[in-house]
Amino acid sequence: MSELPKEPQQDRSRATRQKLLEAAVESLAAVGYAATTVAVVAARAGVSRGAAQHHFPTRADLFAAAVEYMTEVRLAEIREQAAALPGGAGRTEAIVSMLADVYTGPLFRAALHLWVAASTEEPLRRQITSLESHVGRQAHRALLEVLEVDERTPGVRETVQGVLDMARGLGLADLLTDDSARRQRIVHHWAHLLDQSLPR
Amino acid sequence: MSELPKEPQQDRSRATRQKLLEAAVESLAAVGYAATTVAVVAARAGVSRGAAQHHFPTRADLFAAAVEYMTEVRLAEIREQAAALPGGAGRTEAIVSMLADVYTGPLFRAALHLWVAASTEEPLRRQITSLESHVGRQAHRALLEVLEVDERTPGVRETVQGVLDMARGLGLADLLTDDSARRQRIVHHWAHLLDQSLPR
Repeated sequence: MSELPKEPQQDRSRATRQKLLEAAVESLAAVGYAATTVAVVAARAGVSRGAAQHHFPTRADLFAAAVEYMTEVRLAEIREQAAALPGGAGRTEAIVSMLADVYTGPLFRAALHLWVAASTEEPLRRQITSLESHVGRQAHRALLEVLEVDERTPGVRETVQGVLDMARGLGLADLLTDDSARRQRIVHHWAHLLDQSLPR
Repeated sequence: MSELPKEPQQDRSRATRQKLLEAAVESLAAVGYAATTVAVVAARAGVSRGAAQHHFPTRADLFAAAVEYMTEVRLAEIREQAAALPGGAGRTEAIVSMLADVYTGPLFRAALHLWVAASTEEPLRRQITSLESHVGRQAHRALLEVLEVDERTPGVRETVQGVLDMARGLGLADLLTDDSARRQRIVHHWAHLLDQSLPR
């Protein structure tokens, strides 16, 4: 009984945190790192600046939590969508296509602004470096899982990592112009290359 | 005879321009877009600010010319090194490795700062967009040439473009930490996959 009154407040706090994380990614993707202050994110989320600072004492805390949270959300979506796919022809292409969608969406764009800012800003670099390796490991694991391959098989690890690097490159190529037509051809062809090279 | 006195001045002017272009790429890679003003580049190049502004009226002019020039220099180096390679085993890996070196060097780092800044700054975006497509076409052509493949063969175009996207992704992965050990394994493995999939 004594726990009950706390629940709604915890829910509200969690909802506030989530709104801030989503707003941080949106703002980074839309206006870049320099223009994305905690105050800007709080305004976008419809949260008071004080509440934002209660959840995230520094900009770097907010950004790191935002990219981590959004990556978890996106990878969970991919896992769910992939689970609904039939096996056989077309499955690999659907997976590579979903992956390319993640890397051309606002989450990758936000991460890109953060990575580039971190490359010339030392305290941010340390924080983002550990985030990057965590995010990279999660994406790698999710891709192995949905492709239904085992990285202990020689070559599988490098094949899958190369595909993740390609997806990152496709994201970069889509930054300034709509690259979707070229991307679709590459996804189609590389899904075929993957099917040929991955052991089934 | 009347042309002779002009030559040394033209040479000096060309040398000044070249020093500015190299310094612009170095500065972008080292301190990022916001901190790379024309004055900073002029100082790094050991050129007066007036001379710098004579060559490049705006920052965007300077940056676009710098990335274009350095890309030409790097691709010419790759063509030259590749021409010295023997055919057969090891050739593809040496080429993919040289490509990965370009995308993890200061030129790619400079371009990355520029691309990301352009994504939220409209006049810069227009200028960088045309530069990006020119640079992309040049890299594509150079890679076809050194791999000795013809893009009219079905699938070759998409294979080669995917490799360029992978190289861009490897460049991003090297931005905050030394990714060379992982990269070397991916280059080795994907050179093998390329040899299997490209028609010879």
